[in-house]
Amino acid sequence: MNLILKISGKFFDEEDAEKLKTLKNTVNELTNEGYRVGIVTGGGRTARKYINIARQMGSNEAFLDLLGIWASRLNAYLVIFSLSDLAYMKVPESLEEFTQAWSYGKIVVSGGFQPGQSTAAVAALTAEASNSKLLIVATNVDGVYEKDPRIYSDAKLISKLTTTQLRKILETSQSVNAGTYELLDPLAIKIIERSKIKVIVTNYNKLSRLTEIIKGEEIASIVEPE
Amino acid sequence: MNLILKISGKFFDEEDAEKLKTLKNTVNELTNEGYRVGIVTGGGRTARKYINIARQMGSNEAFLDLLGIWASRLNAYLVIFSLSDLAYMKVPESLEEFTQAWSYGKIVVSGGFQPGQSTAAVAALTAEASNSKLLIVATNVDGVYEKDPRIYSDAKLISKLTTTQLRKILETSQSVNAGTYELLDPLAIKIIERSKIKVIVTNYNKLSRLTEIIKGEEIASIVEPE
Amino acid sequence: MNLILKISGKFFDEEDAEKLKTLKNTVNELTNEGYRVGIVTGGGRTARKYINIARQMGSNEAFLDLLGIWASRLNAYLVIFSLSDLAYMKVPESLEEFTQAWSYGKIVVSGGFQPGQSTAAVAALTAEASNSKLLIVATNVDGVYEKDPRIYSDAKLISKLTTTQLRKILETSQSVNAGTYELLDPLAIKIIERSKIKVIVTNYNKLSRLTEIIKGEEIASIVEPE
Amino acid sequence: MNLILKISGKFFDEEDAEKLKTLKNTVNELTNEGYRVGIVTGGGRTARKYINIARQMGSNEAFLDLLGIWASRLNAYLVIFSLSDLAYMKVPESLEEFTQAWSYGKIVVSGGFQPGQSTAAVAALTAEASNSKLLIVATNVDGVYEKDPRIYSDAKLISKLTTTQLRKILETSQSVNAGTYELLDPLAIKIIERSKIKVIVTNYNKLSRLTEIIKGEEIASIVEPE
Amino acid sequence: MNLILKISGKFFDEEDAEKLKTLKNTVNELTNEGYRVGIVTGGGRTARKYINIARQMGSNEAFLDLLGIWASRLNAYLVIFSLSDLAYMKVPESLEEFTQAWSYGKIVVSGGFQPGQSTAAVAALTAEASNSKLLIVATNVDGVYEKDPRIYSDAKLISKLTTTQLRKILETSQSVNAGTYELLDPLAIKIIERSKIKVIVTNYNKLSRLTEIIKGEEIASIVEPE
Amino acid sequence: MNLILKISGKFFDEEDAEKLKTLKNTVNELTNEGYRVGIVTGGGRTARKYINIARQMGSNEAFLDLLGIWASRLNAYLVIFSLSDLAYMKVPESLEEFTQAWSYGKIVVSGGFQPGQSTAAVAALTAEASNSKLLIVATNVDGVYEKDPRIYSDAKLISKLTTTQLRKILETSQSVNAGTYELLDPLAIKIIERSKIKVIVTNYNKLSRLTEIIKGEEIASIVEPE
Repeated sequence: MNLILKISGKFFDEEDAEKLKTLKNTVNELTNEGYRVGIVTGGGRTARKYINIARQMGSNEAFLDLLGIWASRLNAYLVIFSLSDLAYMKVPESLEEFTQAWSYGKIVVSGGFQPGQSTAAVAALTAEASNSKLLIVATNVDGVYEKDPRIYSDAKLISKLTTTQLRKILETSQSVNAGTYELLDPLAIKIIERSKIKVIVTNYNKLSRLTEIIKGEEIASIVEPE
Repeated sequence: MNLILKISGKFFDEEDAEKLKTLKNTVNELTNEGYRVGIVTGGGRTARKYINIARQMGSNEAFLDLLGIWASRLNAYLVIFSLSDLAYMKVPESLEEFTQAWSYGKIVVSGGFQPGQSTAAVAALTAEASNSKLLIVATNVDGVYEKDPRIYSDAKLISKLTTTQLRKILETSQSVNAGTYELLDPLAIKIIERSKIKVIVTNYNKLSRLTEIIKGEEIASIVEPE
Repeated sequence: MNLILKISGKFFDEEDAEKLKTLKNTVNELTNEGYRVGIVTGGGRTARKYINIARQMGSNEAFLDLLGIWASRLNAYLVIFSLSDLAYMKVPESLEEFTQAWSYGKIVVSGGFQPGQSTAAVAALTAEASNSKLLIVATNVDGVYEKDPRIYSDAKLISKLTTTQLRKILETSQSVNAGTYELLDPLAIKIIERSKIKVIVTNYNKLSRLTEIIKGEEIASIVEPE
Repeated sequence: MNLILKISGKFFDEEDAEKLKTLKNTVNELTNEGYRVGIVTGGGRTARKYINIARQMGSNEAFLDLLGIWASRLNAYLVIFSLSDLAYMKVPESLEEFTQAWSYGKIVVSGGFQPGQSTAAVAALTAEASNSKLLIVATNVDGVYEKDPRIYSDAKLISKLTTTQLRKILETSQSVNAGTYELLDPLAIKIIERSKIKVIVTNYNKLSRLTEIIKGEEIASIVEPE
Repeated sequence: MNLILKISGKFFDEEDAEKLKTLKNTVNELTNEGYRVGIVTGGGRTARKYINIARQMGSNEAFLDLLGIWASRLNAYLVIFSLSDLAYMKVPESLEEFTQAWSYGKIVVSGGFQPGQSTAAVAALTAEASNSKLLIVATNVDGVYEKDPRIYSDAKLISKLTTTQLRKILETSQSVNAGTYELLDPLAIKIIERSKIKVIVTNYNKLSRLTEIIKGEEIASIVEPE
Repeated sequence: MNLILKISGKFFDEEDAEKLKTLKNTVNELTNEGYRVGIVTGGGRTARKYINIARQMGSNEAFLDLLGIWASRLNAYLVIFSLSDLAYMKVPESLEEFTQAWSYGKIVVSGGFQPGQSTAAVAALTAEASNSKLLIVATNVDGVYEKDPRIYSDAKLISKLTTTQLRKILETSQSVNAGTYELLDPLAIKIIERSKIKVIVTNYNKLSRLTEIIKGEEIASIVEPE
């Protein structure tokens, strides 16, 4: 069974290797459970820093996206170096490169591919190309909420929803709930639907319990493609 | 002034070089008018043929997209060879490659970049990266219609519309009007809006009158970003 | 034992996946019989279409060859996608890339390499570089004939011949028998001779009986290097 | 006249575009004065962050160097985007790539090349390969001091010295004066000597007066190769 | 007017830069006469050395060809470094790379491309792709002879011949006249014919008189395509 | 256990395959002893020839280094072809490429990487990146001597020394003892020290006894990092 694990860029914001060690253990556990794992990393604070400087200089949006992509690849290399022998030693820069990398049988860690595509879309695309039927989105909240949990303390986590429902939440809440929007953009949802990929949204602080989360024994949101 | 010209893949469906010669003349005229031109080509019948075969074999959607991308690059090379010395001699395979190619000062001809992105989105991205404020979409109808002109003989061409209006037309008419949908997908519209790029939708059979179309002296649809 | 299988571009002319499924079965059978397989694909109708358009535009012969090469690579990707996990996921674009690809132990599928080299010559070169002593040429006739079997209904298939004899047939019959000429051009023959590679010419419609053909239990022509 | 400008990674530490705008003006001035400019950027805080995390994970020194190199390339892209049309649009990743990039006539911006080489050595190498006889090292102090100016308020700037003298200062003061040591490592000095490249060490906060510094009208240290 | 100059690998056999300086002068003269020049270099003694060692080790013919190709590229880099600013700074490794390199307007220097192709064939291919109607073959004899001039002191130089005549000479004299055979192999002749390229065979020791040779004022052999 | 074997370029100076066959046996033996082997080759006579010609033409030092690097890669390909199936089929051109190549599990053979780095430094870097704790330097003398053994017949081999001692020998004897200096340059020593890599210096004529040398049963010099 193949599985793609998307890790939010915020995961890499602190100068701390502990999280990466937990990630390594999680990957080992998943491997022991019979999963072949691909990983996609976001850009996080490094991306935001470079994008902010370039925006002040008047760079166009495509160039801003490129800076975010290169920052996400730095995070990808951190993951590769933490996995060492288990990982394919190069971050693929396109789906073609991913496909080739994947065929060697090791864990492939990608950052962004192209301007105009979020790393969530990259995660969906690599899930599709690797025939994975499961995509884990690890972020800084516990799942999908009806309203932004960082603003509304009474926001309720939705434990099961369809892509149609997710699309509606994203549309209505976009202004107040940018955080959720990052989880899965319209392109990612389209790919998930066309290839029938199940998505689990969870907190990256719960990575040590990921096998339980997959089994449904731990809190998270499950998004079913429609 | 920079300008991107997106040419529908159908333009390349017949084994006929006349259209390509007209395209060359058009590019020459645009150059004389002071435009620096980039071109993006769709995949057309060749793309559909390879996608159909691979779909019968059960290939995943990402691989089908890749076949379409490679077919669109064949069309891009035809344009390059017809322009010969005026053109950059390689089809860029990513926005990074496009950016580098563009900096040499020649006409750059791209096909698709990545699965999950239409060639319309590629056109919007290259417009953004080249700081073009004008994107011409040349297709097999005369512009954007309220309903599908190939079905309804009374369909009216809309000579001016906003991206919001376009989005609404695309949403409501998707089933009956797949042709229009191809013009600009959601990602293309998002990029057009964020970078304030004006779009002119016109018929590729009117390429010989493109400078007039740009001046507003010929029938076409103008889409203003919002 | 290593073996190269050259498949005529005509094999890919119809929008039909059945032949590709047969090819996959054949490759599986060959693998079970202990063969390690490399495949080379011709360009077929797609190649001819693009070459014809470019020729009308006055492109030079080297550029026409390039279009044919890119078309042959599209066919190679169809084979790769039909083989999926068994195949190396990239079409090598030179013998250097082939050599590297081959060393990973998977089935490598190549199209053309360079202008001035037919895909038959590519097949001979990849046979040489992979130390294969057997090259199968699968085409739309049953073998090598004294005269063109598509014109002369009494043309006789030659079941065994030397490269010297083949060279003579090609020279004398070139005008009436272009089909045969495609089988093996002078460069391919030169390589076959210098590296002592046995060639079997057979019909691609008999791929399901290829292991029998190799054993000599089915009609085909065997060309022995001299 | 060709000239290489090495900019310390610290220059990029703040989320502020003003310095980059000054740099652009400086490059324009240098161009007006008849200089063809190449730029090399250090890695700065981003490099240190990623190196620190990877070191905690036990990555080997070569991998730590690679992270620093990739971070320095992010800084190089910031410079490229600030220069836009004046710059070659890709950061070269080796001296071979630099040489090719340089031949197009635009400003080439490099980060690190290889583990084991500081970006100061890269600056010296690109000076050599571009036949530059002048290398500007812009850092966070005003020049070369006898002792570390950030510790000893009475440290005196040396306005002229030879590479032999510099080497001696670096050797004796290494422990108390790591800052100076970064300026030019042994490899950089070796290259400067073998190719007779004059080095000016100056403060990157004085970039707006760089043409005066080159003319000797502003405080800085000049290192003459021996 | 475009022109390709093929230089025998023997030209590079001695550790002597004088010939390369003459070559540079010749290229300058040709440029002044209005020619745009491409150069192709053979492998010479270095190629033979590496091929001989590898043959003793039992390497296959394709690998031997690769060693010869890499050696020819070393010679190509010598020419590039001797031309410095006039030259494109990378040796193209395929016709696709040549085509791209050629479009930048500088002198492009190629070695071999692919196993199975002589550097004479590479010269013919680059002539074709660059729309050159003239190919100079500079070797260690003064032109094409009826018999091997290094054996028969009475061998007569043929000042004008057709490709058909050349083919006949090559066929009949192959054993006694290997030197001539190197000049143009069957593939090179085929390309010359299909693209109507005139060939002048001359001695590389007469490079300083190349403009006179082109004007027909100096001894050489002219091969007209048929 | 991983191990890097650095082979002096002089090893490749004669047109003789015997040494390469011995090397293959040695690699097989090391593999049987449980070592995973990487190899780095110097440039030797071919490098010197091309460097000498280019120096006469006035090429800059960086370009001279590049010629030496390309020559060293020719030697690397000879080793690859002699090892055939055991080797990764491409010579990596940077440490990034080496790292990727190494992860496939085969023997990786490198030449030089970058101007300014000796192949000894490349050997140290590849040892570091592959987490090798042992580096064998095979050269044309039996080990490290107090003075140049090719000049002084009474020169004594030092069987054990520290990097500090080696550094002192190199500094004091540089003029009379250039041969020793080649063994390990300052960059190589710095890497060896920072990553605690043990170095054994031995004669390449004793390769057949390398496993004994590693066990300390044969004459050689051991350099311990400090």
